[in-house]
Amino acid sequence: MFLCRIRTDAGTVPAVRLDDETLLDLSPLGGDDLVELLQTPDLEAKVAALAASAAGVRIPVASARFDVPVARPQKIVCVALNYVAHAEEGAQAVPTEPVIFFKPPSSLLPHGETVRCPARSERLDFEVELAVVIGRRSRDVAVADWRDAVLGYTVLNDMTARDLQLVAIEKNQPWDHSKGFDTFAPCGPYLVTADEIADPGSLDLSLTTDGVVRQSSNTRYMVFGVPELISVISAGITLEPGDIIATGTPSGIGKVDDGGTMVATVEGVGSLVNTAAYERATVGAPV
Amino acid sequence: MFLCRIRTDAGTVPAVRLDDETLLDLSPLGGDDLVELLQTPDLEAKVAALAASAAGVRIPVASARFDVPVARPQKIVCVALNYVAHAEEGAQAVPTEPVIFFKPPSSLLPHGETVRCPARSERLDFEVELAVVIGRRSRDVAVADWRDAVLGYTVLNDMTARDLQLVAIEKNQPWDHSKGFDTFAPCGPYLVTADEIADPGSLDLSLTTDGVVRQSSNTRYMVFGVPELISVISAGITLEPGDIIATGTPSGIGKVDDGGTMVATVEGVGSLVNTAAYERATVGAPV
Repeated sequence: MFLCRIRTDAGTVPAVRLDDETLLDLSPLGGDDLVELLQTPDLEAKVAALAASAAGVRIPVASARFDVPVARPQKIVCVALNYVAHAEEGAQAVPTEPVIFFKPPSSLLPHGETVRCPARSERLDFEVELAVVIGRRSRDVAVADWRDAVLGYTVLNDMTARDLQLVAIEKNQPWDHSKGFDTFAPCGPYLVTADEIADPGSLDLSLTTDGVVRQSSNTRYMVFGVPELISVISAGITLEPGDIIATGTPSGIGKVDDGGTMVATVEGVGSLVNTAAYERATVGAPV
Repeated sequence: MFLCRIRTDAGTVPAVRLDDETLLDLSPLGGDDLVELLQTPDLEAKVAALAASAAGVRIPVASARFDVPVARPQKIVCVALNYVAHAEEGAQAVPTEPVIFFKPPSSLLPHGETVRCPARSERLDFEVELAVVIGRRSRDVAVADWRDAVLGYTVLNDMTARDLQLVAIEKNQPWDHSKGFDTFAPCGPYLVTADEIADPGSLDLSLTTDGVVRQSSNTRYMVFGVPELISVISAGITLEPGDIIATGTPSGIGKVDDGGTMVATVEGVGSLVNTAAYERATVGAPV
């Protein structure tokens, strides 16, 4: 199933994709927390019954306003330098074990919305990534048991104020600020259930800006695949239902221009579309 | 007020310190989310009335099992290298603007509990810090308006697997993993309301291990004080109610031994006591 959260005038509702043009409102089956909704017994049969009934409300994909697929992740774990060609383009050593950092949940941005450049930066960079959504509380997961932890997959664009990151690297300081601003974690549009993806280690992924291909690779080129990432990250760090692991970006990273449109695509998972804006927020303005 | 969250056989309850030996159970006034509880109109008068009534249940401090004072922070923002002498002891440059990183909420640990060394590390380091708890959604806060964002203060011990952090610094990679493990953010025991602290920029803070003073300084030696930290961090990053800002540690950082007891104290805020254990978790064991 391709599940999503849709903002309507009556509030955010859970929905499922029936086909490329049509979503089915799943409100009759539960609230908009997809992680909870996926605990529903016989969910697929209930979705099919709802789709077949007169009570099934359709929402056109074209006019839908998406929200991020995970309502309240406790944390977003990101993996750095996880494709050889990307590590090399940044003049960084290829890691001998997974390198992680955290993005705050306040950086999440829905499909269709605008990434905004913070006042202190002049360079918004895109980074397409396959993201794993955790399904249950997990710690010290053995590599062989990795599937037990996975609820599904989504797409995450690990937006980076590259100028700030390069200053941090120059000073050998943490990168987090350059990747932690509001709107810097576009995510979605769908939470794709794990059964839809036979092998997360053989998916094409790409990113275009204004139709031009900037990144194009396959998850088979990850330094550490999803099973090993889940095992290493959960060794000492409890993963909670809804937590997101962004598995790293391939080579080709670069700047998106003011007004540019980014399409981040992972095969079988979806295409995440966002625009970029460089106008400055007013410091001191209320939220 | 010195508020806290106490674990009882009937669940976690909110409480307030009446004196050094006595807590008052605040369950009649609301749930255990102190950030929500502090929105209660005339809370101080209601607490006084409850304390004076026969319905007021006392809990001895000595036997209380504390929980972390913030139930569900969306994020924990940490400030690195924010005391000159600490930056120098790490052979790091004194920052020209605040350096931040994130700890995941899964790293929080209550007062009285045990910090556990992850399998991949052999060095648990303590770092006493004054922590600010955010009271309302805040973004782009002007320096002069910093008090509007602050609900109160607590103590946070920014535990660090120093051996892993030094490897990360050597490789010029993010520090997050070395500071993000479960139990690596001891926090509490109290959420001290902002009215109790006239100036967070003139508080003694210290840390002892097994009674020996290891860190001793004053928040006046911060490179960037609380007002500037709130302004800079909120410039582009929305702070949510309950978010925690750990304001950095002074010099004297070092290792805590197996079985050692750490007492992290901030003047007027409280003393956070935790032990350390180096026994290894079994990889692959369920949570």
